[in-house]
Amino acid sequence: MTPDTIVAIATPNGRSAIALLRLSGAAALSVVKQHVAISQWQPRHAHFARFVDQERLVDEVVVTYFPAPHSYTGEEMVELSCHGSTYVQQQILQSLLASPEVRMAEPGEFTRRAFLNGKFDLSQAEAVADLIDSHSEASHRLAINQMRGGFSKELAHLRDQFVELTSLLELELDFSDEEVEFADRSRLLALIDTLEQQTRRLVDSFNMGNAIKNGVPVAIVGRPNAGKSTLLNALLNDDRAIVSPVAGTTRDTIEDTITLNGILFRFIDTAGLRLSTDTIESAGIDRSYQAMRRAQIILYLIDAVTSQSEVETELKEAHQAVDLSKKQLLLLRTKCDLHQPDHPSGIAISAATGQGLDTLRKMLVDTVGPLETDTTLLTNVRHYDAMVHMLEAISHIREGFNKQLPADLIVVDIRDALYHLGTITGQVTNDEVLGTIFSRFCIGK
Amino acid sequence: MTPDTIVAIATPNGRSAIALLRLSGAAALSVVKQHVAISQWQPRHAHFARFVDQERLVDEVVVTYFPAPHSYTGEEMVELSCHGSTYVQQQILQSLLASPEVRMAEPGEFTRRAFLNGKFDLSQAEAVADLIDSHSEASHRLAINQMRGGFSKELAHLRDQFVELTSLLELELDFSDEEVEFADRSRLLALIDTLEQQTRRLVDSFNMGNAIKNGVPVAIVGRPNAGKSTLLNALLNDDRAIVSPVAGTTRDTIEDTITLNGILFRFIDTAGLRLSTDTIESAGIDRSYQAMRRAQIILYLIDAVTSQSEVETELKEAHQAVDLSKKQLLLLRTKCDLHQPDHPSGIAISAATGQGLDTLRKMLVDTVGPLETDTTLLTNVRHYDAMVHMLEAISHIREGFNKQLPADLIVVDIRDALYHLGTITGQVTNDEVLGTIFSRFCIGK
Repeated sequence: MTPDTIVAIATPNGRSAIALLRLSGAAALSVVKQHVAISQWQPRHAHFARFVDQERLVDEVVVTYFPAPHSYTGEEMVELSCHGSTYVQQQILQSLLASPEVRMAEPGEFTRRAFLNGKFDLSQAEAVADLIDSHSEASHRLAINQMRGGFSKELAHLRDQFVELTSLLELELDFSDEEVEFADRSRLLALIDTLEQQTRRLVDSFNMGNAIKNGVPVAIVGRPNAGKSTLLNALLNDDRAIVSPVAGTTRDTIEDTITLNGILFRFIDTAGLRLSTDTIESAGIDRSYQAMRRAQIILYLIDAVTSQSEVETELKEAHQAVDLSKKQLLLLRTKCDLHQPDHPSGIAISAATGQGLDTLRKMLVDTVGPLETDTTLLTNVRHYDAMVHMLEAISHIREGFNKQLPADLIVVDIRDALYHLGTITGQVTNDEVLGTIFSRFCIGK
Repeated sequence: MTPDTIVAIATPNGRSAIALLRLSGAAALSVVKQHVAISQWQPRHAHFARFVDQERLVDEVVVTYFPAPHSYTGEEMVELSCHGSTYVQQQILQSLLASPEVRMAEPGEFTRRAFLNGKFDLSQAEAVADLIDSHSEASHRLAINQMRGGFSKELAHLRDQFVELTSLLELELDFSDEEVEFADRSRLLALIDTLEQQTRRLVDSFNMGNAIKNGVPVAIVGRPNAGKSTLLNALLNDDRAIVSPVAGTTRDTIEDTITLNGILFRFIDTAGLRLSTDTIESAGIDRSYQAMRRAQIILYLIDAVTSQSEVETELKEAHQAVDLSKKQLLLLRTKCDLHQPDHPSGIAISAATGQGLDTLRKMLVDTVGPLETDTTLLTNVRHYDAMVHMLEAISHIREGFNKQLPADLIVVDIRDALYHLGTITGQVTNDEVLGTIFSRFCIGK
């Protein structure tokens, strides 16, 4: 028998006031009972108890029992809060693991069990990890909306429409020789339009959703000595309190992040350009173009002394190298405290005097636009992929319909769309997909 | 009005499955009620709830209300467990701090309030911090015994005996001209003996108690190339899994720690000696002597090839430089795989073959002796100081008694002893002392 009761320390590593361990599975309560003596267990009641291992007192703890199915996982669960000593935590963990029914939980295994027990769908489970990783108001808002089922509701609505489409097609099939055909055709077309619009809106929202989740990528580019680092420092210094260094990112590719109006902006440094000599100039420019390709917003810095014709040449080169059609390009004329730009293009800024910085911040925020709580944005590349497949299926449905293919052939494409929709909610899934999804979770969640 | 309700995040910094916030004070429940809607609050019940700030959903949380006086602090308390996102934790903290009744808790302030509300005495409160800091079985055992009141019980017993002494002296005072005198004198003397013995045992236990709490200091000394680092590496490698680097200690004064049989040993490196040249030789030897003075156990390493007369000269020098009367000196003959030592003194070891290492480990453990759970050892320098003062007071009591001083003069010394005893339990204390004690606690405890 494989042990089906899992245990984990759910709080971060380290010394603290309190640490929390949790168990889930059929044996959760009976195993804990071997270590704490409580005369009358009450569900969801915080019992004060002594945790004992082989007659040795390990700690004084607070134990709460969450009976199945009204627990996070839907299984029998027990939570133990103990003193936040790393030694005590390890001792308690080892005591519990000594029972053959218990094993260490894998990352995300509690949430995985909650999903498997129908506590929520897969997109909601994924939002739990997003919530824990959230680092700005906007990313938090998206995650909590998704966790609460905002996205699931839209998916359910899409599913209903696909089902309606199927039944209309079946009607078509039954009465194909009769009068009803025309009316149903127009309803069918309208339904396909709606489905396509809604799916496309979600697909299109990924760019922004992903940017909000991971930080809106902003490239700061421009010729050497255009004032790129000075600008970045000016932006960072002003917002030092809310600068959040992102773990695991190296400073040579990403300079730093700033939260403006609850939105995280991730500045991509192209500082390499500044040190360029003739021989490595082109390599530097290449790096700059790469940064522009990765960015959603490009701050293009041009020294105020640069002439209008030079500006135009420079921008033309950039346009040729990088597809800027889906990017927001903000032209900034720097060092305006030293030289008054003699032409109108771009925002006049000066990192030294602070001129134009507020305008720039406002423009950055406006680029992202107002975030409405209720709007669902795709933030997950897995969901995006599934939605792109759905969009393809919808296009096949429309094509089949236009070509007046037999309804039972069109239904194949509807099933395809529903399959991809099902992968998002987890109605269609497999162990490998689940493994990938939950491996990015914390231990204990 | 100063806000008397305190709040803190009680779990370590960082991203995790779950984080815990706690509030204590009169307004704890009313403030939390502004953010979560629970129709029927039940004491000590884990309520699932939505935490809302200004109509914005911050997180789904589990809230537990611990009514006064049956809480950790003895005050109204609420614990909130939320998703372990640093952003969410900060948002909830800020929401709660927005209430004028609430302020951030200082380190140890929850435990300080518990002490002030008579939940336990000061020595027990201090043991809470010791428990959280414990890193070995032995230090954990001492801390939990003290937290559970083992030390407090001994102190109460001492107090009772001082009180009995006072009443016997008062009897002496009342009947000083009568026959009862002699019988009471012998009882009095016996009582003073007992008090002195018990107090001295505790004072003497500090050396070991402190060593166990912070790691038993072991100096590895010897001439250059005696094999000190090789020995340390051999000890560390064998126990790599339980090597615990101690935070905040620099490698130039302390090499590393090993847990043997549940006891932490802290090896003091004297590696500087190895690099000594003639000019800095004396400085190196000084450092070595310093390490010996700080150590409780000295591993004195001598190369197997060294002659017996050289060994004697070396040890004589060490004895002259350092008072070794209270130290455990273990003489080790190193490199015994290369040379068979031609004289019997010391343990023959070889880091290369492992010869003698098990014997050495056993001797290290034996030096500390078996740890009985019920034995109280002083682990706290504050308690040690108070106990030393008590010992002085007892010696004055005996002196006064022998000199047949008036009983009311002797009572002054008893009061002095009781005063120092009271500083340990906190019956006598002041804000400054409390401030010092609790400042070393975690936030949230």
